[in-house]
Parts: sequence; C-alpha cells; structure tokens
Amino acid sequence: MTHRVMNFNAGPAGLPLPALERARDEFLDYAGTGMSIMEHSHRGKAYEAVHHEAVSLLRELLDIPEDFHVLFLQGGASQVFATVPMNFLQHGRTADYVITGGWADKALAEARIVGTPRVAANTYSDGRSSRVPTQSELSLDPSACYVHITTNNTLEGTQFHHCPETHGVPLVGDMSSDFLWRPTDVRPYGFIYAGAQKNLGPSGVTIVLVRKDFLATARMDIPKIFRFGVHADNDSLYNTPPTFAIYMVRNVLAWVKTQGGLPAIESANRRKGTLLYSTLDALSDFYRCPVEASSRSVMNVVFRLPTEALEDRFVTEATKAGMVGLKGHRSVGGIRVSMYNAVPPSAVETLTDFMRDFAKRTG
Amino acid sequence: MTHRVMNFNAGPAGLPLPALERARDEFLDYAGTGMSIMEHSHRGKAYEAVHHEAVSLLRELLDIPEDFHVLFLQGGASQVFATVPMNFLQHGRTADYVITGGWADKALAEARIVGTPRVAANTYSDGRSSRVPTQSELSLDPSACYVHITTNNTLEGTQFHHCPETHGVPLVGDMSSDFLWRPTDVRPYGFIYAGAQKNLGPSGVTIVLVRKDFLATARMDIPKIFRFGVHADNDSLYNTPPTFAIYMVRNVLAWVKTQGGLPAIESANRRKGTLLYSTLDALSDFYRCPVEASSRSVMNVVFRLPTEALEDRFVTEATKAGMVGLKGHRSVGGIRVSMYNAVPPSAVETLTDFMRDFAKRTG
Repeated sequence: MTHRVMNFNAGPAGLPLPALERARDEFLDYAGTGMSIMEHSHRGKAYEAVHHEAVSLLRELLDIPEDFHVLFLQGGASQVFATVPMNFLQHGRTADYVITGGWADKALAEARIVGTPRVAANTYSDGRSSRVPTQSELSLDPSACYVHITTNNTLEGTQFHHCPETHGVPLVGDMSSDFLWRPTDVRPYGFIYAGAQKNLGPSGVTIVLVRKDFLATARMDIPKIFRFGVHADNDSLYNTPPTFAIYMVRNVLAWVKTQGGLPAIESANRRKGTLLYSTLDALSDFYRCPVEASSRSVMNVVFRLPTEALEDRFVTEATKAGMVGLKGHRSVGGIRVSMYNAVPPSAVETLTDFMRDFAKRTG
Repeated sequence: MTHRVMNFNAGPAGLPLPALERARDEFLDYAGTGMSIMEHSHRGKAYEAVHHEAVSLLRELLDIPEDFHVLFLQGGASQVFATVPMNFLQHGRTADYVITGGWADKALAEARIVGTPRVAANTYSDGRSSRVPTQSELSLDPSACYVHITTNNTLEGTQFHHCPETHGVPLVGDMSSDFLWRPTDVRPYGFIYAGAQKNLGPSGVTIVLVRKDFLATARMDIPKIFRFGVHADNDSLYNTPPTFAIYMVRNVLAWVKTQGGLPAIESANRRKGTLLYSTLDALSDFYRCPVEASSRSVMNVVFRLPTEALEDRFVTEATKAGMVGLKGHRSVGGIRVSMYNAVPPSAVETLTDFMRDFAKRTG
C-alpha cells in the first residue's frame, strides 16, 4: 500500500491517484511502444493521439463549442498576464481590469507595461480583499478591448459566483484556480486561461480557450511565439509542447469523466465547501473567515485562528495527522485549505473533525 | 524485463533508463512524503531541494562560474528566439545573426519583429546547409548588442566545432541540440540557451545561462515575465516553474555524474560519431552525407540513400529491428540519426551493422 497524505496544497496540488497510477504503470513503456510517453516525438502518432484526446476530452467535459480554440501553452498564467494585452490591447484603446486580489493586480501590472488598461472595479487594497464586486460596482468602458476578471482568488479565498455582464465587450477570465470545478458555460467569455497545476495536472502547461471572433482582433506585430493565432493554427504544435504535462492533463481529464463528468465533480466540491464553511461558522468564536458569504470560494478557503502561535500549532498538528499544505500564502498568513477536484470529501471530513477537536482542546 | 527500443528521436528524445526508473519508483510517493514530486508546492522544502540540486549539478558538471546565472524557464528555445531580442536588442542598435539552418532562421525572424538584426554570415539557402561558416566569413559589427549562433543545427546535421571570436561583443548561443554533450567552456558566451528535450530531460523546460554583466544591459520596458533578470532574482521561482520537468532534469544530471561526468559523456559521443561517420564514408556509394567534414554534427547525423523508396524501406526495416526515430525532418527528408547522450554506443553499433547489411542487400 503506497503511503499517501491528504494534500491541501494550493498549487501545484494533489492529483487523482488513478491518473498518477496510470502514468506510473506505463512510465517506461507507453502503450507497448518501448518508450516513455515523454521520449516520443511530438510529431509522432503516439503523442499526437494523446494530445488530441486531451483536447477532445476537455471539449466534451466543458461542452466547448466549435467557435472556441482549445490550446495547451507554456509559461503559466503569469505569462498570459503579458500575452493577453500583447495580443488584444490595441494602440490608443484601453482594457478594463477588475481587481479582486494579488493575482489580478499582477495581471494589471503587466498590462500597464504593454498599454493603458483601466481599473473597472477594485475590491483589493493593502494586500487584502474580502469579496468580489457586484455587477453594479463595475464601471465598464463600452469601447474597451476586453474586460479582465480573476474568477477565483487563490490568496484571498474569494470567487465570482456570477458571470459579469459586459454588454458585448469580450470577457477574459483567469480561471487558474477554479477551471473545471463545475460545468461552466464558456460562451460569455472571449478568452479563458488557467495554469494546469490546480484542477488539471502538473505545473508547466497552461490551458487557453479563445473564441475565434475575438482571436480575429489580435495584433500581428508581436513575436510569432506569443500570437495565440499561431498556436491555434498549429493545434498547439507550433513548437515542442510540454508533452508529459499534457499527457498528465489527459489522464486527469479521463479520470474526471469516469467520476461522472463535471456534474459529479461539482457535487463533490459543493459537499466539501458546505462542510468546511459550516464548520467555520459553527466555531466562529475560534475560527474567523474574513470572506463575505456571497464571495466565498469553494476552491480555496482561508481563515484565521485567535493567534499566530495557534495557527502554527494547527499546521504542525494537522501535518502530523497526515494533512499537508494548510499554511496560508506567505503574503497573507493564516490557514488556507485548497480543495481542488482531487481532494476527496473524506479528507475534508477528517480535516473538519480535526478542526473541532483542535478548537475544543486549545480554544 | 521492460520492453525498450533503441530511440534515435531528434527531440523529445530518449532519456537514460536509470533517470526514468528513479522517477517511476517514487512517482506516487516522493522520498516518503506521501505525494508525487509533481504534487509538491514549488515553495516547499522537498521541491526546492530538487530545484537547487538541479542547478548545482549543472554548475558542477559544466564548471559554470559564479558570474553566470543558471535559469530554468518555460516556452522552449522558440520563446527565447523572441525574449533574447526583447531583453538585449536595444533601440537604435543591431544584433548580429549567423544563419546556419532553419532554427537560426526562425531566431532571426523573431528578432526582426522586435528590432533590426543584421545577418553576419549565411550558409543556409533554399532550406539547405552543408556547413557552418569559418571565422573569416563572419562579418561582425563591433557595435552590435550581441552575436547569435546556433551551435548545432538539428535539421541540417551541422555543428560548430570552434567558438566564434566576437571581439568583446556578447556571444549568444542556441545550444538546444548540443548542450551538455561534452565539457564546454561557457566563459566566451554572454548567454546560452537550450530546450531540455535533447540531452537534458523532457520537453517543457528551457535552460538558460546568462552572464551577469550581459544581463545588466537588459531592457526594463518589457513585461516582467519576459525579463531574464526577474527570473535570476528569484532563482527561477518567480512564478510556478515546470516542477516535474525540472525534477527529471535533476535525475538526468545525476545520471551524467554517475557516468563519470562530461568527459565520459564526450568520449561515448565521439565513439558513436566516429562509428557512424566512418560507416557512411566506407559505404559512400550507397549512403550520401551532404555535410562537409569540418562541420559534421556529433549529435544529429543526416544522410540520403539512392532513392526515397529505399529511404522509406530503410526506416521501416530499422523500426522492425527496434530502432526508431530515423526518419529525417519533414522539411529536409532523408535519414536523421540523433545520438544524444542517452543513446548508448551499443545502439549505434546495432544501427551500423544494420546499415552495412541493408546496403549489401539493396545496393
């Protein structure tokens, strides 16, 4: 029996055991070819089949219409912070950024180097945010090239539970930390991106969905390697893709399908969220969640204990009990529980049992 | 006994079996942590130790001095084609490009989008090249920001066997397909880059060595994610790195060390090269190597057979005999034998035996 802990890492995050086992079992000899999948040419039949299966599984699971390209790129969401404005922020025009946390702020900072973005709403200040804005708080420019939102804020533990109405301006969503957490209608978006290392696979591959009519507006005066259109024209095989990372994404998507697809995944995620937030609410004298109820993230749950010393002890004792990754991000502190798709509800049950016991013993 | 073929792929290429076995054995539980290495946070102790070990092994094997940064980035060499001029090609100045093949030409094309590079020498035309230029053929601009060369030309089977003298202008080397093939003095270079998927590991990670005085000349008006200085300041942990790919590079570098380091690796590579080229020369009525003797690559050997039909038959029969990856690049045709570090001399012996037999049977 392999030793496995309960992994609440914020990303890179835990992966489904069957997806890992599948990779392990064929690690030296993929499908009888006498090579690891990572030793195959990206132009060969074996890898190309994996590549296209990953795309088609994603299309199937998310019901992505044909007017979207599905791309697998490199560089992480941090690179897309730069390449979105390089492609889509036209000279003499603006783009609207909704600032809901540290990652949105980084996206804005890169856009400012490329062009002249606007802030359309801001619920983030002094490194803190307790909610996402409502529709009526958005001050949108109808002539903007696009509106950028961060659908889930990993550091702050907030999440959009509505899709902002942008009145025809293309919506760009950084979904790095909540992509594929439930069935999602991608049609309101012109562009969606996500680093894989939360719900999809290992780090080193970025998923991009781009609507063809939005892509048609992209600038052509930037290096070819940064043009989303070049990657779309070449099925993400313009240059050597991160083949093993994409193979792992394929394995994870195949696992999602065997679970019953995204409706089943959402149901498990909702169960985990309800369990953890109701535990926090029931013990609100001890645990304090700074996030407003309407903005609470189902992926990343942040909370504080009465003292930092107790937080340290909480993390130490939880680690000893086989629960890892609970320390809050260094920029925020406190506790963070990341409950991506691969975290089973049973792990959250164990965690909430521990939380009740810890509060009783130390509170 | 695991089924393994003789892998002559041009990249992604075969990896040393011990490096793969090490990864397979701890795939679900890295070093007793109860997680795969790819499930670890890139800010955690387990991964950081791997990350820094990869850097220090590379420094040790190549004897890289302290005035060079060692970076692990994403995007492949194709991305560096753009980011080198973005960082180092100053407004109102030029950079010298030595064009020796299809990849050098792509690097030049990206530089032309960013600024105004010059061609300092060109031995590539009509999609063909049979040699690299001599020192006296280089027409260098003493005020250039840098001189760019492709040290090994994967498609054309040519390789620089001398390091061009640039009289103080920083030399930039794309070493994607011959990085780490032998002990190499990096001091003449200001910047070296290589996609990992030849001699170093899986695709999805790019190795960059940059000299600190050259880095100090870099432009600051480009997106942060593309500034080499940002990655240097953060030990390649500015954003989430491709952790598993870097872990595999660590495993490969550890294997190189157990082989006796780069002197032993070079000796094996020279043996393979001598064996294959002497076979080609001895059978020059049948096999025709278009590369001039002084420019022959020890990594990628290209040759033609009397007819395309015989080339197809050669590839088919070799594949049946357990030798894969011998088909030339679609843009060039013919046969290509890539003999990166992980290809054992015994595989080249088997191949040359096959070549002699094939020539006798069909010639």
